[in-house]
Amino acid sequence: MWVFLNDRFVRKEEAVVSVFDHGFLYGDGVYETLRSYGSRIFMRDQHLARLRRSAEAIGLDIPIPQSQWAELLHEAMRRNGVGNEQTDAYLRITVSRGAGEIGLDPSLCPRATVVIMAKPLHPSPAILSRDGVSLTVAKTRRNLPEALSPQIKSTNFLNNILAKRESIAAGTFDSLFLNWKEELTECTVSNLFFISGQTLHTPALDCGILDGITRTIVMTLAQEEELPVREGHYHVADLQRAEECFLTNTSMEIMPVSRIDSFPIGDGRPGSLTRRLQTRFADSRTRFLEPAP
Amino acid sequence: MWVFLNDRFVRKEEAVVSVFDHGFLYGDGVYETLRSYGSRIFMRDQHLARLRRSAEAIGLDIPIPQSQWAELLHEAMRRNGVGNEQTDAYLRITVSRGAGEIGLDPSLCPRATVVIMAKPLHPSPAILSRDGVSLTVAKTRRNLPEALSPQIKSTNFLNNILAKRESIAAGTFDSLFLNWKEELTECTVSNLFFISGQTLHTPALDCGILDGITRTIVMTLAQEEELPVREGHYHVADLQRAEECFLTNTSMEIMPVSRIDSFPIGDGRPGSLTRRLQTRFADSRTRFLEPAP
Repeated sequence: MWVFLNDRFVRKEEAVVSVFDHGFLYGDGVYETLRSYGSRIFMRDQHLARLRRSAEAIGLDIPIPQSQWAELLHEAMRRNGVGNEQTDAYLRITVSRGAGEIGLDPSLCPRATVVIMAKPLHPSPAILSRDGVSLTVAKTRRNLPEALSPQIKSTNFLNNILAKRESIAAGTFDSLFLNWKEELTECTVSNLFFISGQTLHTPALDCGILDGITRTIVMTLAQEEELPVREGHYHVADLQRAEECFLTNTSMEIMPVSRIDSFPIGDGRPGSLTRRLQTRFADSRTRFLEPAP
Repeated sequence: MWVFLNDRFVRKEEAVVSVFDHGFLYGDGVYETLRSYGSRIFMRDQHLARLRRSAEAIGLDIPIPQSQWAELLHEAMRRNGVGNEQTDAYLRITVSRGAGEIGLDPSLCPRATVVIMAKPLHPSPAILSRDGVSLTVAKTRRNLPEALSPQIKSTNFLNNILAKRESIAAGTFDSLFLNWKEELTECTVSNLFFISGQTLHTPALDCGILDGITRTIVMTLAQEEELPVREGHYHVADLQRAEECFLTNTSMEIMPVSRIDSFPIGDGRPGSLTRRLQTRFADSRTRFLEPAP
């Protein structure tokens, strides 16, 4: 396995950073995860734009010119034998503040650290998409947006890890976070949707959630299907009354949810509107990919 | 400079971790900073106990037996020529989840990474203690305790870094955080106290603050001085009416605050009760140190 580190590709064993990297000391960094379908990266420019927005939000300069990213991502795929007809690629870009003296002042670090990882994308087991997954409503609340906005994809991920530990302990697929006002938000790495009264509902951005790229696509596809879409402020009781529920992110696409804690969603099986959106997503996918090489 | 890394001391240049360390990918780790006076570490066992509590709170096993820490800390000081009659030591212990596949599940990482750094402690410039420091009330709010408790000393420090950036931009010493209810909490690396009506006030732990070790000592010393102590829920208006104000942490001890944004505290100079507590702290210090070697 080859990893891009700052200015070159190195073997995984050589892909190391100083213990003085503020990414390691303080979680002072940002990231994006991307995927390819074959050799074509899904929503590449949108992911790169969000990386820039995350970095700007924490005052971090990314030392790679915008024009070089596409080539670097493709070289990462080629070097690791992924992103081809046989194997879709999973990509992770991490940009940390870099190494510097101990202290919170970002100016202690003269140069950011840039890492690109690429590996085979393992699709979710088919049984999950067929039967739907179960969620736990986490005791851990989602980060307060005014403390650390969930719209910044930062390497401060302990909030998500604490919630993930709850779902592991409960034996469920993932945890669903409530916010400081007990409103529904999102899961540890995905956005939440539910269908109620022939309308697609999803928590509004000001609930404190990531502005997910697949979330936006699903809202567009739903409108094309003439399914009304509403972004709002919801509670667990709204889910208990929902007919269908699903999660979205780049690697899972649309994942049906069949159960939340002790209650089933609808009849406890993925619903027909979720299936319709999954089909439309698969049929429309090509328009969200970068141009063929 | 020598750094302890997992099982041995290495040169600073060799003190590296994998880019797959979940400390780097996710800020999944905990830390403590300690100091010595000469060769004796201040509140050593209390800092080590808090490290254990932080690790337990995130389900992290620390792979160093409790009995070995004292010797490791002293060897770190000796190797770096600090913690002696000439130079007090600053120590930082970092324990991260360790290297593992990408993913939030802690079980992906078979072994935690342990790092100990030791360097000369640079006392705050005397002018700060003489004249007092200025604070900015940050727009960034303190982490929601139910999202990521400020009582866990974790390497998810971006909340503090965002607030620190505000104080750097304002040209002040540090930022003061409010919580989700606009109550006073703490600064980026210190606890807050103020004196009003001959009573020492400090935000209660449930405001969402670190249970600071120097904070506890100062409350004890104040009681010994027969100064009433109250932990409560306060707002910026309470500070505007305060007669004196100061910060506490392990390396600064007691630091007077003379100004917050545009308003002075009292007459804008460190007050007499703050001076009394500083003197008592200096006179009492020996009882908070580990036994002489």
